[in-house]
Amino acid sequence: MTKVTSVKSSDSVFNPKKFIENERTRSALKVEEINCFLESNPDDQKITHELLEQIITDPILKCDSYYYDKEKNQEREITARKIKRLSLYMENDIKLMQKNQVKREKIDIIKNLQLNPKSKFLVNKDLNIFDKRLSLIGMIDPQLSTRVGVHLGLFGNCIKGNGTDSQIRYWLQERGAIFLKQVYGCFAMTELGHGSNVAALETTATYDLDSDTFQINTPSLTATKWWIGGAAHSATHAVVYARLIVKEKDYGVKTFIVPLRDNSNFQLLPGIIVGDIGKKMGRDGIDNGWIQFKNVLIPREYLLSRFVKVIPNQESTDVSVKIQPQLDQVSGYSALLSGRVNMVMDSFRFGSKFVTIATRYAVGRQQFVQVNEVGRIETQSSKKKEQHGHNIANVSNNKETQLIDYSLHQYRVLPQLAIVYLISPAAHDLMSSYYNTLNELYEISSPKSDKQQADTTDKNAFSTVSSKLKNLFISSASLKATNTWLISNLIDELRQCCGGHGYSQYNAFGKGYNDWVVQCTWEGDNNILSLTSAKSILKKFVDSATKGKFDEGLDSDDFDYLDPDFIRKVYTHDISATLEDTDDNTNESLETYIEIWKIALIQLLIHIGKTIQKTKDFDQTTILLVTVSKFHAIHYMLKTFYTKLKHDEISHITDQHSKDSLWNIFKLFSVYFINKYSGQFQQFKILKPSQISSLIQPKLVKLLKEIRTDCIKLTDAFELPDAVLNSPIGYFDGDIYHNYFNTVTANNPPESDDPGKPPYHNVLTSMLSRDYEYDSRLGGSLNKDILEKLGK
Amino acid sequence: MTKVTSVKSSDSVFNPKKFIENERTRSALKVEEINCFLESNPDDQKITHELLEQIITDPILKCDSYYYDKEKNQEREITARKIKRLSLYMENDIKLMQKNQVKREKIDIIKNLQLNPKSKFLVNKDLNIFDKRLSLIGMIDPQLSTRVGVHLGLFGNCIKGNGTDSQIRYWLQERGAIFLKQVYGCFAMTELGHGSNVAALETTATYDLDSDTFQINTPSLTATKWWIGGAAHSATHAVVYARLIVKEKDYGVKTFIVPLRDNSNFQLLPGIIVGDIGKKMGRDGIDNGWIQFKNVLIPREYLLSRFVKVIPNQESTDVSVKIQPQLDQVSGYSALLSGRVNMVMDSFRFGSKFVTIATRYAVGRQQFVQVNEVGRIETQSSKKKEQHGHNIANVSNNKETQLIDYSLHQYRVLPQLAIVYLISPAAHDLMSSYYNTLNELYEISSPKSDKQQADTTDKNAFSTVSSKLKNLFISSASLKATNTWLISNLIDELRQCCGGHGYSQYNAFGKGYNDWVVQCTWEGDNNILSLTSAKSILKKFVDSATKGKFDEGLDSDDFDYLDPDFIRKVYTHDISATLEDTDDNTNESLETYIEIWKIALIQLLIHIGKTIQKTKDFDQTTILLVTVSKFHAIHYMLKTFYTKLKHDEISHITDQHSKDSLWNIFKLFSVYFINKYSGQFQQFKILKPSQISSLIQPKLVKLLKEIRTDCIKLTDAFELPDAVLNSPIGYFDGDIYHNYFNTVTANNPPESDDPGKPPYHNVLTSMLSRDYEYDSRLGGSLNKDILEKLGK
Repeated sequence: MTKVTSVKSSDSVFNPKKFIENERTRSALKVEEINCFLESNPDDQKITHELLEQIITDPILKCDSYYYDKEKNQEREITARKIKRLSLYMENDIKLMQKNQVKREKIDIIKNLQLNPKSKFLVNKDLNIFDKRLSLIGMIDPQLSTRVGVHLGLFGNCIKGNGTDSQIRYWLQERGAIFLKQVYGCFAMTELGHGSNVAALETTATYDLDSDTFQINTPSLTATKWWIGGAAHSATHAVVYARLIVKEKDYGVKTFIVPLRDNSNFQLLPGIIVGDIGKKMGRDGIDNGWIQFKNVLIPREYLLSRFVKVIPNQESTDVSVKIQPQLDQVSGYSALLSGRVNMVMDSFRFGSKFVTIATRYAVGRQQFVQVNEVGRIETQSSKKKEQHGHNIANVSNNKETQLIDYSLHQYRVLPQLAIVYLISPAAHDLMSSYYNTLNELYEISSPKSDKQQADTTDKNAFSTVSSKLKNLFISSASLKATNTWLISNLIDELRQCCGGHGYSQYNAFGKGYNDWVVQCTWEGDNNILSLTSAKSILKKFVDSATKGKFDEGLDSDDFDYLDPDFIRKVYTHDISATLEDTDDNTNESLETYIEIWKIALIQLLIHIGKTIQKTKDFDQTTILLVTVSKFHAIHYMLKTFYTKLKHDEISHITDQHSKDSLWNIFKLFSVYFINKYSGQFQQFKILKPSQISSLIQPKLVKLLKEIRTDCIKLTDAFELPDAVLNSPIGYFDGDIYHNYFNTVTANNPPESDDPGKPPYHNVLTSMLSRDYEYDSRLGGSLNKDILEKLGK
Repeated sequence: MTKVTSVKSSDSVFNPKKFIENERTRSALKVEEINCFLESNPDDQKITHELLEQIITDPILKCDSYYYDKEKNQEREITARKIKRLSLYMENDIKLMQKNQVKREKIDIIKNLQLNPKSKFLVNKDLNIFDKRLSLIGMIDPQLSTRVGVHLGLFGNCIKGNGTDSQIRYWLQERGAIFLKQVYGCFAMTELGHGSNVAALETTATYDLDSDTFQINTPSLTATKWWIGGAAHSATHAVVYARLIVKEKDYGVKTFIVPLRDNSNFQLLPGIIVGDIGKKMGRDGIDNGWIQFKNVLIPREYLLSRFVKVIPNQESTDVSVKIQPQLDQVSGYSALLSGRVNMVMDSFRFGSKFVTIATRYAVGRQQFVQVNEVGRIETQSSKKKEQHGHNIANVSNNKETQLIDYSLHQYRVLPQLAIVYLISPAAHDLMSSYYNTLNELYEISSPKSDKQQADTTDKNAFSTVSSKLKNLFISSASLKATNTWLISNLIDELRQCCGGHGYSQYNAFGKGYNDWVVQCTWEGDNNILSLTSAKSILKKFVDSATKGKFDEGLDSDDFDYLDPDFIRKVYTHDISATLEDTDDNTNESLETYIEIWKIALIQLLIHIGKTIQKTKDFDQTTILLVTVSKFHAIHYMLKTFYTKLKHDEISHITDQHSKDSLWNIFKLFSVYFINKYSGQFQQFKILKPSQISSLIQPKLVKLLKEIRTDCIKLTDAFELPDAVLNSPIGYFDGDIYHNYFNTVTANNPPESDDPGKPPYHNVLTSMLSRDYEYDSRLGGSLNKDILEKLGK
């Protein structure tokens, strides 16, 4: 096929390259330093790049544009092949982490971990490298990381959270689930009639004393386990959420290990009925399925019993049930907690991809101010020109403006860049809180022996961890919901910023959006999660405001705005919102960009409290409570960003210009959202209407213009290789049109025998050449003659 | 496969049915009357239902759930088959419209129209039935209506708008394009480097005096015609937008007919290079392609020359170019105008589908208030229960609430219902303005003979039509942009309202969204269109405010808020915004719901005017101008709805309860958007902060509760058959779980030999059973022995 392409670098097709090069020359930003800031620290930065390189150069794991043309069945199989490949990386990652354990002994590390009962008991942080690998894969091929994540994250964490030490070691280590060996698990929680509303699940696990077994059953259609990732094709085992029924008493929903398939040949086991959920909006590489159980028997020991035990007496004539309720409930959710924390990290990573693409396109693409159709009619000069023509030489002199130089386009793109920047420190911070808190929990709740567990728990220590965990639930719920929403919106908005080309599957937005948006629904619907976290914040607020209850040690990080003194100051107007308009970036002036959100949160909570008092209708305040959760997340992000950037030793930013640029990002984030929520800011008297016009909006425009000058380097600083972007209009070299054209033509080669002639051309030719009704379809002859004959 | 299903109607799986039945019994709404209101009038209502029934019962045209599992190549072919089928309906629809023309003469109507030069010259309204058919198909299978729409709408209207009468008759009627015969057209406007920015297009059409031909060329890669629907597979001809170059002078972009393929065998013609754009975010049934021209020769007569003529002199030694600029520019866009007007209608139809699904699901689905994970820990009573268990008999007594009874869920669903209701009268109104204005334009611009055209045009009449057309451009741009955005958001929001089930492809949201969102980009990017219309509104505002210019006859419909008197009143605060809080629905009280938007528009325009004066920076006000366009659209919708419902003879609503319910919808729409834009309403002092809290938000909650009682009947009133919805969670009978389960299982039957065993199971078994490194992969023997040997 002949391509009209360009070899002259003066040709307009090379403008995008030149524009992007210019930006790089012009901006003094230190890309490496900023990348380190975004990746948390130099060590993590190094690992990120090593892992990314490994992923994109691996012939099985890498994704390219051909990926966009696969259909469901192909995606399913390709994803399985990638999982197989990942299992080898997984072994290697564990070996790297464990190599000091075995020193110079010549043993197979994995074999030892699996088969030697004295080997190390693996904990979360032993999987750090692989977890990071998965998290990075999530940016490139999210269905792959999810499909593995269901096994390792949901299935694995559910066992870790609910199993005894022996159960954990058996299923994960000895049987090999953690190494992707022998056991491949799925997480059978949700049912057709019940989403993440665990308490209402219908599946039953009925204890039978005689055989000492549980019988698992699906009592109704709505009890069908539904949406279960891995159930349709790949799971050999499931953790099943089912009602524990012992002697006709219902003890609520507990977790059970139920084998599904023979792992040697993948045949379903008796009593297990499985089906494929089929085509989804996205992530078709995951084999979501449904499961029904018909009198499936499992041994009593398959009940995960860290916190619940079914104990037949010595003579096997009676049975008792022992439940440790507090821990039960805290830990029961830890499987989901991990997912939420990871989704905040996903938000940073996934968002960085699209903001890189759209920013490069905005710099490279040129466009007139769209000539107003009506406007044109009225413009005398243009009319004249059209009428009389002009010399060809002038035609190419059309001065088209780069998209990024339009205020409106800056407003559409750059705040999205700020959002991604602000998520990063929050995501890293949340992740480390999660690991630290879970480790504390495991340590104090780890039973010395199975029988003594409840007694040996240190109550004070537990109470502290429990509070930390509660706070983590609140912030992770709020951040998961707020950020997955923000990224949905980001992908959509930035796709529109790339015009028609954003609609091409090869430019990543379409599949990206379809894969992404399920994050707003699964593992806690965003609205429900927002309510959950906001209700807890409201409760804390009431405790603080009315009883002065505030835990200086535990709450001063995420909930500093709930300090009783601060609440009082806001209430009595001792403090009022402002944004310091200086460029010197002193701590005091920068803190005003955070404090305004603290005030907003308190004013919003006061309003909600009053509304409930007045109307006695809690339900009606839920619309506002969703906003509380969003404000909490915004405040959290501003605060963690500020704390990090303020301290050179953790920000790793030494270059002053780079630091100033990051402070601008910080300010833009705050100001953008103040403007977006200006309804609330005025309604609750945080700002006056005149301040929106004279302070917020001019500052917004000013910040956009400033950030615009560094925008290419700010996206370069994500350091995403082209193979991660997988979007030719966003590649590093900025050669937008060649890259895009070459991708489209490579993926859609012309028909080899007859280019441009579709395989189904006969459908079209027979339509276009069809005859007239009377001439052929109703008779095949001159109609009048026949009709006259018939009429006689 | 065994299904756990239910035959007892007391089973919980039947709750959704019962809930939905109850709503129907309880509400006194007159569904038929409201449907008539939505369909404009009884005649149109009847036609809509007849056409819909024909579409969903036609074995080729109907869509079912299998449709969701097709991949690109299948969709392409299926869509072509449907077009072939549609061509027969098209003939029939024209025959129905023309049968009075031929009376009792026994002739083939189509043959006569095509081949008899004296036959009727077909105009837009002769295609009314088929256009409506296509519009309805757009709700069921949007890629089909678009693929035909490119030919009939874009290709056809471009010829109608730019061709002489002879050219129109030849291409559309004699050659048969309008009957889907012989000619299948595409619309080659956009280029790789240039979107709808027509003036910058690069393709050239250079006149050669010797041969009296044009030579069409693609001078650069960015000039490649790109995104051209129909180019990849189906078009035999293109209208090509290219720069008219005569004697080295560039006369700007004009339109040319260029043959692409031999219509008998679909081989590409020489000089035509065509490629497939490939996979898109949605609408893969359309064969979008790219085209490059290499010295393609076409006769001079293939220039569409209603308003531009290239005239060689008698001796063929010189050539002159004659351009009628004003008409040229007005008409040039009429091809796009039709698309925009149709997209407003699409917004109504497409939106009605998803709001029906989500409302039924919201009524049928039950859910606890999601138990707050943290909250649960603190609830003593629930803890007790868990600890001690409770009798099984009580388990099924869980009182789960219907989703629709949560305030937050009402807030998420019901305003979307109001949006769809408000679009309907606006869409019908815009459509008839379009037809009327275009007819006027054709009548006055229709040349008596080609040579005299410019002289015989009645200048006054033209000026009036031209002004009407300008107004139509403004309102259609604003309504297209605003409503296609609203519907994108509606689909996304309502998908989330259906939780995980909304993510299943079989429930219509995924494909619906992917197909829909391109409407925000094509035929005028929404941001650009919004700016275009807002700039014109700003200009009108300045003319009215500073010079008292206001055309009572032309502007008092869409632009009544620009009346100089009204502007003055707002400016001097002689008038202030309020919402009458009475339930008597007098005209006066209802009008306050419109007037508040008129005031908002003026205040916003005043602010923008002042900002430009102060900053001299027009570009920076573009962010606010987008809001002007949105407010204009909201005002237009409120006004047309009000005007229609106020008059019984055009509303066709006689039942008082139904009318009141519709007035509530009207109020909800206004109040919902006031609350959504409360930032602007406070900033520009249309409302005080206290009014948002005491007036707007309580009214919003009150209206939601009132509309909730009729919500099922309000969606029934769209009268969409299940086959149109194609979403089992939204079917009429409300049997959500059976319908959904049956659809999923029908589309994904178990593997016939070994259920639940994937075709690629060997990938998984080989992973799960893999050996240890030293045992097999690195040697196949005890590693220590070998290593010792090697170490010696």
